[in-house]
Amino acid sequence: MKTVYAVLLSLAFGVVIAGTLRSETAQLRGTGDLGIVIERATGSVLIVDTTEHRVLNRVEGLGDLSHASAVFSRDERYAFVFGRDGGLTKIDILTGRIARRVVQAGNSIGGAISDDGTLIAVSNYEPGGVRVFDTETLDAVADISAKWDGGLSKTIGLVDAPGRRFVFTLWDAGETWIADFSAGVQPVITKLKGVGDRPYDALITPDGRHYITGLYGEDGLTAFDLWQDPPKPHRILRDYGRGEAKLPVYKMPHLEGWALAGDRFVLPAVGHHEVLFVDARTFEEVARTKVHGQPVFAVARPDGRQVWVNFAHPLNDTLQVIDTPTGKVIREWKPGPAVLHMEFAPRGHNVWVSVRDAGVVQIYDARTFEKKAEIPAKSPSGIFFTARAHRTGL
Amino acid sequence: MKTVYAVLLSLAFGVVIAGTLRSETAQLRGTGDLGIVIERATGSVLIVDTTEHRVLNRVEGLGDLSHASAVFSRDERYAFVFGRDGGLTKIDILTGRIARRVVQAGNSIGGAISDDGTLIAVSNYEPGGVRVFDTETLDAVADISAKWDGGLSKTIGLVDAPGRRFVFTLWDAGETWIADFSAGVQPVITKLKGVGDRPYDALITPDGRHYITGLYGEDGLTAFDLWQDPPKPHRILRDYGRGEAKLPVYKMPHLEGWALAGDRFVLPAVGHHEVLFVDARTFEEVARTKVHGQPVFAVARPDGRQVWVNFAHPLNDTLQVIDTPTGKVIREWKPGPAVLHMEFAPRGHNVWVSVRDAGVVQIYDARTFEKKAEIPAKSPSGIFFTARAHRTGL
Repeated sequence: MKTVYAVLLSLAFGVVIAGTLRSETAQLRGTGDLGIVIERATGSVLIVDTTEHRVLNRVEGLGDLSHASAVFSRDERYAFVFGRDGGLTKIDILTGRIARRVVQAGNSIGGAISDDGTLIAVSNYEPGGVRVFDTETLDAVADISAKWDGGLSKTIGLVDAPGRRFVFTLWDAGETWIADFSAGVQPVITKLKGVGDRPYDALITPDGRHYITGLYGEDGLTAFDLWQDPPKPHRILRDYGRGEAKLPVYKMPHLEGWALAGDRFVLPAVGHHEVLFVDARTFEEVARTKVHGQPVFAVARPDGRQVWVNFAHPLNDTLQVIDTPTGKVIREWKPGPAVLHMEFAPRGHNVWVSVRDAGVVQIYDARTFEKKAEIPAKSPSGIFFTARAHRTGL
Repeated sequence: MKTVYAVLLSLAFGVVIAGTLRSETAQLRGTGDLGIVIERATGSVLIVDTTEHRVLNRVEGLGDLSHASAVFSRDERYAFVFGRDGGLTKIDILTGRIARRVVQAGNSIGGAISDDGTLIAVSNYEPGGVRVFDTETLDAVADISAKWDGGLSKTIGLVDAPGRRFVFTLWDAGETWIADFSAGVQPVITKLKGVGDRPYDALITPDGRHYITGLYGEDGLTAFDLWQDPPKPHRILRDYGRGEAKLPVYKMPHLEGWALAGDRFVLPAVGHHEVLFVDARTFEEVARTKVHGQPVFAVARPDGRQVWVNFAHPLNDTLQVIDTPTGKVIREWKPGPAVLHMEFAPRGHNVWVSVRDAGVVQIYDARTFEKKAEIPAKSPSGIFFTARAHRTGL
């Protein structure tokens, strides 16, 4: 009898304790201060708490996460991770489990979520085009083949734009397409020609107005003002690129790295050891800062007062911080081998830095540069915070 | 024996069921798509789901909520509601309960949360000054008396600024103070003089750089560039105000209503039936649009392409929408009596509108103007979505 009581009581208490842990510790919490860290070598993702600077969970089984990126559901509960192998994985960041997963293509490069949070789009190299899924179920909604004279084009630079639209660019065809889903799940496609030779990446400005494409095959970038109807290609920064000398470029800079600092965009030069400042209205270059190496990301602190810069191999052990009003480098240090990515807290008090070959993510006070904490991670690369859910073009 | 089993089993199952309900149905969810609606007449607040367009809870007992406003914790779980009677209430939006509440002054007007999410500040008329609290416990952290030659000044225009700072202005003294908490809980206070005659409200630009104060006693506004050290007062828009005629002003417009639309701020004129467009770099007026009445809020859709405007009594049954590139009113309709406030979804696909005397909150598609849903509410006024947690100066 005593045994029966003990078993049942421990069962009861066990349930109470498990229930308490599950709802209070593991799950009952806001999601505005969470994020994920891509562990590229192991195909896993860490779920992190940016208030307490700790790891909540590791989620495994995401496939090839080289060049992986992520977006978030509008309730900030789910992360959608785009793998290089065509895998699209929906992670429940509250439970630390994979909610859904599809392998939707053979080779893909990033994605986007519609402004109303209902559609997720993935940019594919193979087969060339964009596939669109329901964010709830990951069921296929639309399949946009990037057909042109030469067959199917690889697609790059996929972003969300206001009005339930996606914008992306065809590498082979040199065209930018707008897929407008405002009327439902059958998109209206607008095809814009004259982008240039081998567009390799693109970005949209934070207000969703200007779509800007980098060119691998020639210098300069191509901008479209999406408020125009129809938008016309406009060549900007004609010197931007590898230039006549065709310098060796270790890594073409990410255009997502363009940052709005006050009334100027800050962007990494291609091949050169420079960061460019560009007037946000005219898209003309207004200043340049010499930096340590070939910049990969130039990320503005959310108040625009400083810009943090990391570099391509073999100088990728270093970070520099530029004061934007003066354009001067005011701080430089070596966080460790292979500094891959930086993500600021949404109001900019902290910044998280992935140092791949040291196996850590470092957390800095973004004003004093003091290192506040370090989190172990397996070959960490991209860092993405849930606050991205509320922003256009990320 | 059977009874013992039954009791213990039902106890065990009871715990399981209660635990499941509590964590799965009532609470386990992301918080990025939630918000609150102030019900001013009844001292209550609705917690709303902006994805499903429904009310999750009503929270009562918040005191005098006329002119109430709110900010959110950085995890987007808690709302801090500032009442007119000095009440500061921390609401757990997941459980729908009051987590903490203090009555911290006799008469107060708004507050702010520090960029790191740890401090909450309240602006008080009586006794004049700013009180600062720990966001976790609502324990008092600092008490900044607004002492000047004339005694204690009422304080207005309290905002957060980057670097764990708060900025506010002394109505009686005509001074703006910066309280810098970057070194801990003992603030370093910088006092800026020369603001002007009876500053009545202020705002900070979305990047946290410019602090702009409206003046009741004279025309024009006073701007400080917080990147300057020390910041100097700079009079802008010298014609902004009631003007020589001293027109009757039914309601001084809220300066928080200033909206960044592309590269221009949009602001309600004082007394006149006009909305002003101001260059965001020079703070010079560049355009004006005639509108239906005295504007109260001019709120830009997050992409800046359109601005929604509501009006003061007795013309407060109407909404107008302005196309920002052309400055033309492109839509006008009457949602109902006493249209008090508008809040856009963070990426702008929807907008929520409180219609006080109809007892409803209306939800519109922000592009087609189609009414998607209507939620009953008791005298609704301010609407605040959790996405504000990630933005400066709200």
